[in-house]
Amino acid sequence: MKSVIVAQVRFYSDKAARFVPKTGVYPKGFAVGGIHCGVKKNGKLDLALLQNQHGNAVASAVFTTNKFKAAPVQVSQRIIKETGGHGINSLVINSGNANAVTGAKGIKDAESMVTATDAAFGNGENSTLVMSTGVIGQKLPISPILKGIDTLAGSLGSSHQHWLDCANAICTTDTFPKLVTKQFELNGITYTLAGLAKGAGMISPNMATLLGFFVTDAPVTAPALRSILQYSVDRSFNSISVDGDMSTNDTIVAIANGAAGGEVIDQTSSSAVSYSKLRSEVTDFAQQLAQLVVRDGEGATKFITITVKDSLSFSDAKTIASTIANSSLFKTAMYGKDANWGRILCAIGYSDVSSSSSVLPDRTSVTFVPSDGIEPLKVLVDGEPEEVDEARASELLELEDINIDIDLGTGGGQSASFWTCDLSHEYVTINGDYRS
Amino acid sequence: MKSVIVAQVRFYSDKAARFVPKTGVYPKGFAVGGIHCGVKKNGKLDLALLQNQHGNAVASAVFTTNKFKAAPVQVSQRIIKETGGHGINSLVINSGNANAVTGAKGIKDAESMVTATDAAFGNGENSTLVMSTGVIGQKLPISPILKGIDTLAGSLGSSHQHWLDCANAICTTDTFPKLVTKQFELNGITYTLAGLAKGAGMISPNMATLLGFFVTDAPVTAPALRSILQYSVDRSFNSISVDGDMSTNDTIVAIANGAAGGEVIDQTSSSAVSYSKLRSEVTDFAQQLAQLVVRDGEGATKFITITVKDSLSFSDAKTIASTIANSSLFKTAMYGKDANWGRILCAIGYSDVSSSSSVLPDRTSVTFVPSDGIEPLKVLVDGEPEEVDEARASELLELEDINIDIDLGTGGGQSASFWTCDLSHEYVTINGDYRS
Repeated sequence: MKSVIVAQVRFYSDKAARFVPKTGVYPKGFAVGGIHCGVKKNGKLDLALLQNQHGNAVASAVFTTNKFKAAPVQVSQRIIKETGGHGINSLVINSGNANAVTGAKGIKDAESMVTATDAAFGNGENSTLVMSTGVIGQKLPISPILKGIDTLAGSLGSSHQHWLDCANAICTTDTFPKLVTKQFELNGITYTLAGLAKGAGMISPNMATLLGFFVTDAPVTAPALRSILQYSVDRSFNSISVDGDMSTNDTIVAIANGAAGGEVIDQTSSSAVSYSKLRSEVTDFAQQLAQLVVRDGEGATKFITITVKDSLSFSDAKTIASTIANSSLFKTAMYGKDANWGRILCAIGYSDVSSSSSVLPDRTSVTFVPSDGIEPLKVLVDGEPEEVDEARASELLELEDINIDIDLGTGGGQSASFWTCDLSHEYVTINGDYRS
Repeated sequence: MKSVIVAQVRFYSDKAARFVPKTGVYPKGFAVGGIHCGVKKNGKLDLALLQNQHGNAVASAVFTTNKFKAAPVQVSQRIIKETGGHGINSLVINSGNANAVTGAKGIKDAESMVTATDAAFGNGENSTLVMSTGVIGQKLPISPILKGIDTLAGSLGSSHQHWLDCANAICTTDTFPKLVTKQFELNGITYTLAGLAKGAGMISPNMATLLGFFVTDAPVTAPALRSILQYSVDRSFNSISVDGDMSTNDTIVAIANGAAGGEVIDQTSSSAVSYSKLRSEVTDFAQQLAQLVVRDGEGATKFITITVKDSLSFSDAKTIASTIANSSLFKTAMYGKDANWGRILCAIGYSDVSSSSSVLPDRTSVTFVPSDGIEPLKVLVDGEPEEVDEARASELLELEDINIDIDLGTGGGQSASFWTCDLSHEYVTINGDYRS
């Protein structure tokens, strides 16, 4: 555990200062909070609640595709299926225990968290979605959680501190809470988005998890929200990677209560402009939130944006970007501040793309685009290696933020971005050495 | 470079002593050798030749599926295609430069290595396959290589030292040469197999490569050899992983010259028993050779065998084993000597298997099988976590060799094994820190 705590001490003040907002604007009609109920042994916040206080909200969710689905994932999936996302007015989340690989008792415990939250808010049954994160394979200490739900339900609020408590209460190995808020205008009305996430990292004998949710006071139908969530998650939470592992608990939820008023946004043609604008705002928002997860990747010293351009399809572009992002050789090169285009090329070459014309070796170009705004550094142009100015390359790779552009030159014009971090000694220490 | 040299000094004596044979039995009719011709700046061996001196041999080869194929891969592929594998009587291999991403000059250089070798041995054209490994993106210093071919061709031999020189001459970041020999009996005749490989590892700004070849004096047709090679490589070189990256140069060649005599083995029913026996001997042999590559994985402290049993198909079993083997979280856990079954389960759950019935959470069992012959340690039985004796688990994970059995319980009865190493601080140092 020692090394993990060292990491928290080292990074928290720095990253928290840069990435945790001092204030926020919050959507109307939602109250949140977080307390310590007794799951975590270190006394940190471990239970979070969100309540919609404005009529009946609609919700949508995406879940891990891992075949070993944790109990809360199975229960939330059932509720989304049975309700179609209608009337979901609360969320309950515990950290410190993932309630995964816990058999029939695990399902019963997750169900009881839903029932207790429904009751605490006086809602009908199946009004709550449940998430858990933390140790796997251990039974949930359900009694302090149920007591905690009762206590916390009485002290929710909508202040910045309430939201920060909520964000802290879902953290496990995270070194800072991830909270993003945003306002935008649509048809003359100001709408607000607020969201939380927790990072993907692992701590023995646990697997940690990507959990997140965002809520808005915009009015939107359940099917439109579902479609917007899927689109935005494909381009945000499904376009990030710390180590390529996908947990049993990953869940992202979106809730909309319409409290800010205005015309309901759906997918009909009359609503097309509003739908498209909302989708774009949500995608941008989800990307900000997802990027914070990468910033806080275990042992991360670099924040790397990989953009693949001029691909035959979005899917090919994303596959290639993701393959580079998950290459241990690429990630160690970035840690070592080495403009190793060979490893990038290698990963492009073994990406599982859709056709033989998806990657054309003699059309492929690779450029490092400095985040300091200075001239881009071309390393490969149309398959031919450039003479690289090594001094300039070193300078560029000293920066925390690294942007790599891959131009596939297929004429397809599609593109995708993917965000990842480097693979450092600290990562190996965190994930290998905690017993020592 | 410092850390790499440290690694060589540290591991060489130990691993070489255990894994490099002191003597060998070699197939009839083959002569080999290795010299320093001038590609490597450190004076180490960098050019290898193999010559068949018994009539016309047949050959088969498998190549990287990376879209960025190095020049020697393109040239060897052309020769195999044009000859159907008939009359391949020599191999030429250089280390120190991969001749990859080198454009038209690269192809010309690879062709000239083939032509020079054909000429040196007085063979007709297209009698030689070529391989290269080392730095990518740099032009091959072709002149010393061509001179070296002439010199080396006059000093080949079939002693153990000649084979060791040949094995050393194809190494790059390897800490010991990989050489395996074996004899077996078929229809009353003793046949011999000998083979070399070099490891998969990376060193800036290079990508290293998996190269290997094996030769036998058994008589076999070109199509039968092709089929045996594919089968054996699927279960050996394609069932190992150091870091999951696949290079631009990977090549495995098999050559058979029939010098030991006997009936020619083909795929007809009359030859079925011999074919099956030969395939089994070659597969076992290829596994031994491939496992040496894992033993010498960059920074490796553990040798891990993952066996997936009772799968619906070989392909599913291999996919699952390979997904575990490539999980950074699993590999760091092994480095940290932690029996972290959660990470194993997690990887099983996100494996890209063929159907929803390929993995059944409540039928899955995971067991650590000690290499010290003591009682296996069950960690998951039919999806239920066991009470793990942590003291016993620690003891077991102190061993260098770790065997993990996954029983899928599907009733399909198929199985696959996969070999990998752990992910250590040393791996990050080798691949990230060489500039410092």
